[in-house]
Amino acid sequence: MKPQFSPNFEKAQGLITAVTVDADNGEVLMVAYMNEEAFRLTVETRKVHYFSRTRQKLWKKGESSGNMQDLVELRVDCDLDAVVVRARQTGPACHEGFRSCFFRTVSDDGSLVENSMRQLTPEQMYGGKS
Amino acid sequence: MKPQFSPNFEKAQGLITAVTVDADNGEVLMVAYMNEEAFRLTVETRKVHYFSRTRQKLWKKGESSGNMQDLVELRVDCDLDAVVVRARQTGPACHEGFRSCFFRTVSDDGSLVENSMRQLTPEQMYGGKS
Repeated sequence: MKPQFSPNFEKAQGLITAVTVDADNGEVLMVAYMNEEAFRLTVETRKVHYFSRTRQKLWKKGESSGNMQDLVELRVDCDLDAVVVRARQTGPACHEGFRSCFFRTVSDDGSLVENSMRQLTPEQMYGGKS
Repeated sequence: MKPQFSPNFEKAQGLITAVTVDADNGEVLMVAYMNEEAFRLTVETRKVHYFSRTRQKLWKKGESSGNMQDLVELRVDCDLDAVVVRARQTGPACHEGFRSCFFRTVSDDGSLVENSMRQLTPEQMYGGKS
């Protein structure tokens, strides 16, 4: 369904921030960005789409890894320039094979510590594709 | 303590994305941005600081409302350009008086629906200050 509501893409200079959380336990899986097309396709298809700032193109999550995100709920912030995407994530959300991209904690001494287990290697996820 | 680790501020064009969640239940409270100084002050003082894009200045959360955030844990993403801030939030995180800035859900018909109760009015939070 075409969304009636639209975030404030103009204020956000074309890209709103999307925080995607596990619909079951609320864990933050990843942070990415949506342009107007990615937002519309997410609402219409219930598959989560982003806009890749690195590749400068529309990005259907899981299109190369198979690790899709099924939309459960979308929340929008007070400024209308960020959304929380509650989704059912197939496999790892992170391209490094972790469930969440936030797999490292800044420890008390300021160093980085892994806080979770890798589920798959990038080779297992992408089958050697670059 | 001065952090040993630094996010990739260069890649992030000076501002990393910060997703702040309630340390107790994981609810996403707000999305904002940190420059290098805000990140350093957050780690050193354990009070969460951001950089306000609107006001183009350092912003200690709660400096005008009193609704501070005490840092519990910082997580960093695979690309080193986003952090999840687990914090203890005093009062509402949202300047509109809601616990979370994400107080509206995009409903199935595409309209916006409030999903939570306002805790305070902006007047109660800011005492008539603009």
